[in-house]
Amino acid sequence: MVLLDGKQTSNNIKQEIAVEVLKIISKGQRPPHLAAILVGSDGASMTYVNSKVKACERVGFNSTLIKLPENTSEEKLLNEIKHLNQNSEIDGFIVQLPLPKHIDEDKVLLAVDFNKDVDGFHPTNVGKMTLELPCFLPATPFGILELLERYKVETSGKNVVIIGRSHIVGRPMSILMSQKRPQGNATVTLAHSRTKNLKELTLKADIIVAALGIPEFLTEDMVKKGVTIIDVGITRVKDASKKNGYALKGDVHFEGVAKKAAFITPVPGGVGPMTIAMLLKNTLLAYKNTTQTK
Amino acid sequence: MVLLDGKQTSNNIKQEIAVEVLKIISKGQRPPHLAAILVGSDGASMTYVNSKVKACERVGFNSTLIKLPENTSEEKLLNEIKHLNQNSEIDGFIVQLPLPKHIDEDKVLLAVDFNKDVDGFHPTNVGKMTLELPCFLPATPFGILELLERYKVETSGKNVVIIGRSHIVGRPMSILMSQKRPQGNATVTLAHSRTKNLKELTLKADIIVAALGIPEFLTEDMVKKGVTIIDVGITRVKDASKKNGYALKGDVHFEGVAKKAAFITPVPGGVGPMTIAMLLKNTLLAYKNTTQTK
Repeated sequence: MVLLDGKQTSNNIKQEIAVEVLKIISKGQRPPHLAAILVGSDGASMTYVNSKVKACERVGFNSTLIKLPENTSEEKLLNEIKHLNQNSEIDGFIVQLPLPKHIDEDKVLLAVDFNKDVDGFHPTNVGKMTLELPCFLPATPFGILELLERYKVETSGKNVVIIGRSHIVGRPMSILMSQKRPQGNATVTLAHSRTKNLKELTLKADIIVAALGIPEFLTEDMVKKGVTIIDVGITRVKDASKKNGYALKGDVHFEGVAKKAAFITPVPGGVGPMTIAMLLKNTLLAYKNTTQTK
Repeated sequence: MVLLDGKQTSNNIKQEIAVEVLKIISKGQRPPHLAAILVGSDGASMTYVNSKVKACERVGFNSTLIKLPENTSEEKLLNEIKHLNQNSEIDGFIVQLPLPKHIDEDKVLLAVDFNKDVDGFHPTNVGKMTLELPCFLPATPFGILELLERYKVETSGKNVVIIGRSHIVGRPMSILMSQKRPQGNATVTLAHSRTKNLKELTLKADIIVAALGIPEFLTEDMVKKGVTIIDVGITRVKDASKKNGYALKGDVHFEGVAKKAAFITPVPGGVGPMTIAMLLKNTLLAYKNTTQTK
């Protein structure tokens, strides 16, 4: 069994990006610049945003964190986005989700200039991805493709089952892995809450992407020997034996499934760290797109 | 076996649209207006465009056909598109594909205002479709959903196999039928040229959408009893017994497969006529979007 080590791989990617940034700076140019907007003070969101900012610093990017109070109006937020769209010193930016309930997320999403949408959430980027045109790939699926590439997991002609049809993971994974591309050309089945014969499907799968958000859902009896497992889930589960009172669990029962797997991602340290690395990669791409068209 | 009669169904839809147009006109408003650009004089393309124009006339739409010579420059075409984008009397327009080789189709596609993209080919529409936001659905998939709806074919929890991953049929069908929507909630597998175990998949499928463009590819031995068959293929095959020297064949061997099917589309007269009806439906939607925002 080979562990798909997202932590190590993401560190390698960050190192590669840092080298590129040094080259940019050595030419006397400004480094790439990522901005993030955080509305409110949700604990998990703050953690995520802070780790993104830290990652920027580590690779030599400029970063800007715009913190807005919980009661920020939709109009005020849209205005901030407009400024970031227009600011030529900012290559890419993200609006940390979820947003407070009084703000329409779809409206916010559409307001972001898709050329700066390094999360790859804007419909124009999603459409370009679907049509196999150059675009920003959504960071989590992009990170999974990168893991599969670096560990040389064969996907062409393989049976892939993706569990969960979310807009940010399951859906794009199902699209990307069935396209004519490296880490693509697979026969993909997208399973979800209405799927009736899930175990029958997973037992035949060469690769399973679990992205449904139910801790330890995928068990040993549901997979065949030699399977590759990508575990996107990360849920806090109460655990009195841990210092902070909880453990992080993936959607896969790791101990059981790992016995049968050829490749498997751990949780934490699998898909999670890759997501941030790919956000940086998208920001670097946005920087290059801008400076090339100058 | 029930024949999914696309000809009759499309006539019903056109009749419904014609009634709506009469209501619009009776209020003293102008009818919806569809424009089409045809570059060159390819026989099949001319046939398609002419049938679209005729369909407009039949339901009471205004229509404009812009014929440009084969050697039209990309710049000239982009300029025509710009004019149509700006012309408030035109609700929607299509650029008939394929375009001559010296013109970049992707560039042309991106130049169309997505609010007038009644073909549903613009990345922004494709992205909105993928993200389940209001948009123009691509006409052929939209027509298939409409057929399934009107014939009350259950899709929720069903195993669907789609053969072919084209941007205009296979890919959008795989997305739409796995979404939470009427005629959705299916467990969809997208098969293509790299799929290794196709027969194994089709034998378990409750619904098969054949959209690969190989005449009579899907045969009786590949399907189970009670299957629903959507045949998107339409290929001219030489046939000396026919007056014009050819017959139109779908991707399904109709005589064999029909014996086992619960529902099946004929070719011609199945999916084909539905496509034009849905183009009209999208144009009516574009008209409503415009007049509502006025």
